[in-house]
Amino acid sequence: MNAKIKRICALLKKEGLDGLLLSSAANISFLTGYRSRDSYLIVSSRGCFYLTDSRYTAEARKALKGIIVEEYDQGLFNKISQVCSKMRFKCLGFEERHLNFAEYKRLRKKLAASLGLAPTYGLVEGLRQIKSAEEIKTIKIATKIAIKAFRFIQKRLKPGRKEIEVAADLEQFIRYHGAADSSFDIIVASGPNSAFAHHITSERKLKANEPVLIDLGVDYHGYKSDLTRVFFLGKIDILTAKIYGIVREAQEKALKGIKPGKTCREIDALARSHIENSGYGGFFGHGLGHGVGLEVHEEPHIGKNQDKRLQPGMVFTVEPAIYLPNKFGVRLEDMVLVTKKGREVLSGVLNK
Amino acid sequence: MNAKIKRICALLKKEGLDGLLLSSAANISFLTGYRSRDSYLIVSSRGCFYLTDSRYTAEARKALKGIIVEEYDQGLFNKISQVCSKMRFKCLGFEERHLNFAEYKRLRKKLAASLGLAPTYGLVEGLRQIKSAEEIKTIKIATKIAIKAFRFIQKRLKPGRKEIEVAADLEQFIRYHGAADSSFDIIVASGPNSAFAHHITSERKLKANEPVLIDLGVDYHGYKSDLTRVFFLGKIDILTAKIYGIVREAQEKALKGIKPGKTCREIDALARSHIENSGYGGFFGHGLGHGVGLEVHEEPHIGKNQDKRLQPGMVFTVEPAIYLPNKFGVRLEDMVLVTKKGREVLSGVLNK
Repeated sequence: MNAKIKRICALLKKEGLDGLLLSSAANISFLTGYRSRDSYLIVSSRGCFYLTDSRYTAEARKALKGIIVEEYDQGLFNKISQVCSKMRFKCLGFEERHLNFAEYKRLRKKLAASLGLAPTYGLVEGLRQIKSAEEIKTIKIATKIAIKAFRFIQKRLKPGRKEIEVAADLEQFIRYHGAADSSFDIIVASGPNSAFAHHITSERKLKANEPVLIDLGVDYHGYKSDLTRVFFLGKIDILTAKIYGIVREAQEKALKGIKPGKTCREIDALARSHIENSGYGGFFGHGLGHGVGLEVHEEPHIGKNQDKRLQPGMVFTVEPAIYLPNKFGVRLEDMVLVTKKGREVLSGVLNK
Repeated sequence: MNAKIKRICALLKKEGLDGLLLSSAANISFLTGYRSRDSYLIVSSRGCFYLTDSRYTAEARKALKGIIVEEYDQGLFNKISQVCSKMRFKCLGFEERHLNFAEYKRLRKKLAASLGLAPTYGLVEGLRQIKSAEEIKTIKIATKIAIKAFRFIQKRLKPGRKEIEVAADLEQFIRYHGAADSSFDIIVASGPNSAFAHHITSERKLKANEPVLIDLGVDYHGYKSDLTRVFFLGKIDILTAKIYGIVREAQEKALKGIKPGKTCREIDALARSHIENSGYGGFFGHGLGHGVGLEVHEEPHIGKNQDKRLQPGMVFTVEPAIYLPNKFGVRLEDMVLVTKKGREVLSGVLNK
């Protein structure tokens, strides 16, 4: 049993659970070190079971040490029930955000009536937010590929090119440079489209003297990156330059404040208050950032109501923004690692 | 109220429900004709409500006719509860596969205790499986882009190129030719990798005299395509040619048998029995096909235990395969539309 699974078993004991059924692929991948797909994991101090179907059984048996691989082609919920009986569980936990109501209903029906079934929240996600040296190394590579992609595309942003063509070139570039995939649909938002925080890359053509906002991340060995840059085609007008400056300063203030012990709420406030004091408080509607790792959005969330304290090993984005409807938007997003004494900006800004 | 929503209201009446809470983006997009993201829809004969947050409110109000757009920044479940009270619902349905247990729990807690909350299964999915003329037109374009991509890449498959580079070129090509996105991670499986039905495109280099299996689909205006082709680099050996022939014949048999009134099970059997009779029954583990539309996998499922009858307007894949472990695999996947008298193969094979 590896160290991560041991920590989960200790948490289960505290909660009075004999075992935990995991259905989140990211959580299973984290605990096993094996890239899990369409599979389930039962963790307990008495033994661990990886439940998969015939497509993955052979590969999983090779990869997983100390975990029993069971094929569930006779029905997943039957198999879970069998394992629980065999292990004499009295109470099984499940991940309440990773089982839909229909699955819950079928599971409850298949399990012995005497077996307790308890929803759990964020047990593995809690561990995942502190990254190991190995994970940090992988995330740094994912970040580096994204930065290379920005350098590559900067020279190719020309009036007349469509947003979707720019995204197309980026999708190609990242795969030639080590990425398995983009970590979400790449956002290319030109001119007024940049005023939408969640613009869908369109057929719109870039125009001279307009900003182009690009939000992109890659998947490298399962770990993600997530960065945003704003480029300018030609002249920058006074308002755009001013807004860019405010957002940049807001980001600097937040980044400089990051160190262990600070709360997520405090870091959010550092950027937000600068934007508010500059008179644009009403134009920054979302949180300041989010954790990044096996998923592109994970713990911790850096926002107004987040009292969580920063700890060394946390990796998250810092992405203040100002969106001026029908005009343009500026969002600057970098990734930062909390270190013992402060922070390291993984995407190469403010690193001194 | 549009015709689709009227049909859902009729189904709700039958089930004794006053309203239905929809949480599947595809189902909401289908009913409203509006590309929905991070939003919810409450449908009832007394009125419909689109619940979204401040990012999408303005856009949604412009796009949605006859549907009240409500902002839920004060909490989604509070908003749902308010709507139910205002509409005096006694029993609300929800989509049991599209609400996770945590969401269900929070919803139940927020709703008045006297309000019934009933799981529903596939109400909208049932309607979605019969495509309108407009939907078929869109799916045909998505299919055409995928076929263009195959033609483009065929000339570029050379020994020494990595699988991921081939995928990179395809990801770029489809966006230059009208697609918004690939509809799933493009699979490029060379040599022995083609023996895995769900291979993850890797850094492996293509080799001479090997098959290369490519499974790709695109998203065009929200609608998907999904096709698989097998290419050969150089000579085809006797076994590979034989297997290819069997799979092609199996596909032909299935395609020719498609017409309204046949069951999904019967169509599956047409291909499967040919593979079995050829001595390879043990090497075709998955179902013969699946519906394609707003989602790349949807109703109907063409498999062994599927008694559903084909109806005009259904669109699905026909993808028989033979996977020989450690050797190679052949899967041939086309998309077919059930017509009044028979079928139309959308991806250009067997169309006479």
